[in-house]
Amino acid sequence: MRVRVLVRLKPGILDVQGAAVKRALMGLGFTEVADLRVGKVIEVELDAPTAAQARARADEMCRRLLANPVLEEYTIE
Amino acid sequence: MRVRVLVRLKPGILDVQGAAVKRALMGLGFTEVADLRVGKVIEVELDAPTAAQARARADEMCRRLLANPVLEEYTIE
Repeated sequence: MRVRVLVRLKPGILDVQGAAVKRALMGLGFTEVADLRVGKVIEVELDAPTAAQARARADEMCRRLLANPVLEEYTIE
Repeated sequence: MRVRVLVRLKPGILDVQGAAVKRALMGLGFTEVADLRVGKVIEVELDAPTAAQARARADEMCRRLLANPVLEEYTIE
């Protein structure tokens, strides 16, 4: 079973990396960029009997290791 | 227009961060993890008249800045 986890900084937390990338894109002429945020994508291949169980386990992984609940939010796809 | 870019290491390139995370998960008892890879997600909000044009510009951003074509591959969603 393949699960995709997206980990992003919470809205309101300054995304320094995103700001730097946005600035670099502006410098290259991509002036249409209004906003840009950088996060992590974690693709997990795991053994689970059902998709719902794979998702539940991925959620537990996020809570215990993959995401920092103070600064980050995550979604599982 | 909102575009999501996923940047991952090419298959065959050693993902050191992914290996470290996998190992940490194993140590926490998530022994069902068979494979894990870590990449970047870049969410871009940009002005473009159509979704196709937004995508084309995002593709150009990837080629010029966001992805390293030697080590990485990208997908746009």
